[in-house]
Amino acid sequence: MSLTAEQQAEIARSRSETRETRRVVAEGLEARLYEAVPVLDHGFVRVIDYMGDDAAIVQAARVSYGQGTKAARDDAGLIRYLMRHWHSTPFEMCEIKLHVKLPVFVARQWIRHRTANVNEYSARYSILDREFYIPAPENLAAQSTVNNQGRGAVLEGAEAAEVLRILKEDSTRAYDHYEAMLAQDDQQGLARELARMNLPANIYTQWYWKIDLHNLMHFLRLRADAHAQYEIRVYAEAICELVKAWVPAAYAAFEDYRLGAVQFSGPGMACLRRMLAGETVTQETSGMSKGEWREFEAALKG
Amino acid sequence: MSLTAEQQAEIARSRSETRETRRVVAEGLEARLYEAVPVLDHGFVRVIDYMGDDAAIVQAARVSYGQGTKAARDDAGLIRYLMRHWHSTPFEMCEIKLHVKLPVFVARQWIRHRTANVNEYSARYSILDREFYIPAPENLAAQSTVNNQGRGAVLEGAEAAEVLRILKEDSTRAYDHYEAMLAQDDQQGLARELARMNLPANIYTQWYWKIDLHNLMHFLRLRADAHAQYEIRVYAEAICELVKAWVPAAYAAFEDYRLGAVQFSGPGMACLRRMLAGETVTQETSGMSKGEWREFEAALKG
Amino acid sequence: MSLTAEQQAEIARSRSETRETRRVVAEGLEARLYEAVPVLDHGFVRVIDYMGDDAAIVQAARVSYGQGTKAARDDAGLIRYLMRHWHSTPFEMCEIKLHVKLPVFVARQWIRHRTANVNEYSARYSILDREFYIPAPENLAAQSTVNNQGRGAVLEGAEAAEVLRILKEDSTRAYDHYEAMLAQDDQQGLARELARMNLPANIYTQWYWKIDLHNLMHFLRLRADAHAQYEIRVYAEAICELVKAWVPAAYAAFEDYRLGAVQFSGPGMACLRRMLAGETVTQETSGMSKGEWREFEAALKG
Amino acid sequence: MSLTAEQQAEIARSRSETRETRRVVAEGLEARLYEAVPVLDHGFVRVIDYMGDDAAIVQAARVSYGQGTKAARDDAGLIRYLMRHWHSTPFEMCEIKLHVKLPVFVARQWIRHRTANVNEYSARYSILDREFYIPAPENLAAQSTVNNQGRGAVLEGAEAAEVLRILKEDSTRAYDHYEAMLAQDDQQGLARELARMNLPANIYTQWYWKIDLHNLMHFLRLRADAHAQYEIRVYAEAICELVKAWVPAAYAAFEDYRLGAVQFSGPGMACLRRMLAGETVTQETSGMSKGEWREFEAALKG
Repeated sequence: MSLTAEQQAEIARSRSETRETRRVVAEGLEARLYEAVPVLDHGFVRVIDYMGDDAAIVQAARVSYGQGTKAARDDAGLIRYLMRHWHSTPFEMCEIKLHVKLPVFVARQWIRHRTANVNEYSARYSILDREFYIPAPENLAAQSTVNNQGRGAVLEGAEAAEVLRILKEDSTRAYDHYEAMLAQDDQQGLARELARMNLPANIYTQWYWKIDLHNLMHFLRLRADAHAQYEIRVYAEAICELVKAWVPAAYAAFEDYRLGAVQFSGPGMACLRRMLAGETVTQETSGMSKGEWREFEAALKG
Repeated sequence: MSLTAEQQAEIARSRSETRETRRVVAEGLEARLYEAVPVLDHGFVRVIDYMGDDAAIVQAARVSYGQGTKAARDDAGLIRYLMRHWHSTPFEMCEIKLHVKLPVFVARQWIRHRTANVNEYSARYSILDREFYIPAPENLAAQSTVNNQGRGAVLEGAEAAEVLRILKEDSTRAYDHYEAMLAQDDQQGLARELARMNLPANIYTQWYWKIDLHNLMHFLRLRADAHAQYEIRVYAEAICELVKAWVPAAYAAFEDYRLGAVQFSGPGMACLRRMLAGETVTQETSGMSKGEWREFEAALKG
Repeated sequence: MSLTAEQQAEIARSRSETRETRRVVAEGLEARLYEAVPVLDHGFVRVIDYMGDDAAIVQAARVSYGQGTKAARDDAGLIRYLMRHWHSTPFEMCEIKLHVKLPVFVARQWIRHRTANVNEYSARYSILDREFYIPAPENLAAQSTVNNQGRGAVLEGAEAAEVLRILKEDSTRAYDHYEAMLAQDDQQGLARELARMNLPANIYTQWYWKIDLHNLMHFLRLRADAHAQYEIRVYAEAICELVKAWVPAAYAAFEDYRLGAVQFSGPGMACLRRMLAGETVTQETSGMSKGEWREFEAALKG
Repeated sequence: MSLTAEQQAEIARSRSETRETRRVVAEGLEARLYEAVPVLDHGFVRVIDYMGDDAAIVQAARVSYGQGTKAARDDAGLIRYLMRHWHSTPFEMCEIKLHVKLPVFVARQWIRHRTANVNEYSARYSILDREFYIPAPENLAAQSTVNNQGRGAVLEGAEAAEVLRILKEDSTRAYDHYEAMLAQDDQQGLARELARMNLPANIYTQWYWKIDLHNLMHFLRLRADAHAQYEIRVYAEAICELVKAWVPAAYAAFEDYRLGAVQFSGPGMACLRRMLAGETVTQETSGMSKGEWREFEAALKG
């Protein structure tokens, strides 16, 4: 993470000031407010603002006049019930605003989640910083040989060194040329909106991103998943920790009913019932394709 | 407005408690928090929570590290620029949550705005209160004779009395029958989700409604407009006052560039330019249909 | 279902005309186009238009240049894979437009699904028809005694008769008064937008409703479910048949991976693994609440 | 535009086949179906499918049983009325699906329009083609000296030559290295999802993009505007021509009431009325800021 002294001072100033409010306050998240959580080599996630807490979920579900309920324990029970039965609207009543610094190729995946509000740093107006994501050696994965989308073993030795050399040199050169095109001594300089096209997808951008808790959990379910690309998963994992600090009861329900949950298809349930009745079921007798059976067995193993 | 003593006590309790927060605070709206603003005969609007203030709009537009800017005056200028040029995403960075009590026929119009989060009091789970909207005599408008959608003069005398009698008697009877169907002494009682079908559209419902500032202003532009039905317009007007207290600079820009703005079509602009050059333009020479010309003249008169 | 002779003639005329198109055609749905499928006592669902077919899902997933793929069998396999792994965007590439006639209290549930386009018949401009939903005797359910939201046994005898009498009489009277308020001989008549407030929630309305296949399946999963209110479930079931005719491969995958699927929580999976290993697990040793355990057992039984 | 012979053959095959349908058909767009309209040096836009026509807008506005209306002239009048009064839902009843090939930096602007369905060619699964956007010399604009966001004069001579040399060389080298990292002889090759990060923002990607007519016109209003970046504007202009062929009446209304329309603020209207009354108004007496006044004068001049 590379914050300038000025940026660090602004964050420290924001963290040092408190005000009075009549609104509900989530103590766990107040402690983390504005703080930049490092992700990848130059990225971060930080919470800028939030609305609501666990009790606000319950309050909305009950359309109530007052602020909370009697017992935190009852709230947790209702929250679990709502999560289990896909009653999503009460979770939409909580909102969070993040400031995220992330490589462009990660931003391109992230933006596909449409139910959020976004303000991105503009490369039409402004000049981007010289910051590029260069993977740590342990994340330099080879193409999977069994899965078009996946990663295989980690590259090593000369091949790894060559990849890192290319990424670093190309980034440096691209940025040198970006700067050169923007302004050359006694020349006009290319328009910013054009010059940026020379920059590779590992350059960092940043945005303000605001989303409600229901849609955030949907994002986290997909992006904190083992199938997500490592470079976005680490952002999702950092956000998970912040959500846990914000709405602990909702996050616990999310872990049980989403992150840790397994869905079985109709045919899968038929097999499961046969197995519980003592029958030995194989792929051949399961009625499932090989791919489905492999996933079924993996789900049972956990 | 008909709040029970218990509801009033819950609201008073919420208003009396303050907490410390590191988040930005909108002083103007803090003063109005939780308070029920009366609308129509039994309805209300009250703010349950909010996120952001005028400075947060600017902060998002700049994707900045710190909290505010130096001068409120500069903020207002940027906000006016953003509003004028339809840069809507910074306004999406503010969010408000309202508790609204409103007649069902108003709720049916309101819900058509899809970019909001809603939790409505459920008539499947719960029993609705005996509260119906009965128009004040001055709002008992006749059908317009020139406009299918509009209202004409106010009904008077025997006709007005008869309408009020019908509305009151039918509401009372419908609710009596609703109660009777729900539970009759030694009988089972009809399911709530069925019994409610006997209730007319002037019964009150309530919901939590959460929306970002950009989409709220879009709602207000349509619903605070003179063409909106009176019964939803009074809610929009009450919300306008709350928005003014919340984000005064954004609201001022909204008044200038949305509520008070006029749009001229391409053909309308052509006429306008001819008129500014001294020409007298009539409907016949305008190239506009009679309806368009009537609206054009009305817009110029203001 | 109560279509006028004129409406039936318009539908017949639409069905009788064919045109040439270069677009993909779903033969199964062409056969059903425009036809009104009866639902409840006066309601219906009919398909007005559609875009795409099973092959279009595959085509979008592959971002391909041509229209289809070689083998329908391969398409079905890919569609199953996409559905199983929650790759929802290819399903969004199919779209359907329905004309639905439905009671207002059903419309109020339906409209909560926000990711659709809607044009509803306007009671501000127009006068509603005299058509009310009166449940068939076998659907006159009592309030559940174990579940706030549910239905219990069917009402019988005098109680049932009384409920039906109330619903019919109140509907008739409300509509008589609606008409009376709208126009009385030598009087002006109340504005339509006001008079409608006297009409109960079992009056029929109608709308055009357009939605993509992914969001439609989400709607169907919730509304064709056993927990949905009967009066909306019958619409969902009618639509399921139309979707089956339209995109048979996608519908089959939807049945296996959504309608017939079961999700187990993290704690549920832990129990399941113990059970498969031969252990007898009870609620007490499960780590689940009574409610969760009851649902867990029900899911295993199917 | 660089379509392979195979791609051209697939397009020709799609265009050559016709089928029977009962759906409405837009003759003007049928003629353009599947055809690739060239944009920029290697990009294109082509229509894959559509739903509805001008009559379908009217039909939805009226929630009608039949297919069309008597007179095309009446339809056009109603469409103009709907457009003028911001009745947007009937326009949402038409839908179009496009296949677009575009540089990544254009795709990043485009995707900000959230109310569309998208399937993008995946650089996690697949290998991107060696195709980069290199501006034509006449589009090699300098940074504006008066506007952070804008373009100034066109670069010329040595400076232009140097910019083109950089863009071409860096693109070529980046792609060479991309290929080298993916697979090197007896080495494993870097995962595709990682290797792509070396590719600059002028590489071409492609997607299927589906949107309703209302949201499409919103996109076109912003992106066919003179303030939009040239490289996205040319796509918007190509789409405008397709929309004109599809729904000519709606497009004509869109031209008059959106593309060619001008909005005046409240203060602007006050000035306008004074000017029409014969008064000479200057910036000093206008009550507007310099920026607003400049825009006001420009709007009057047209």
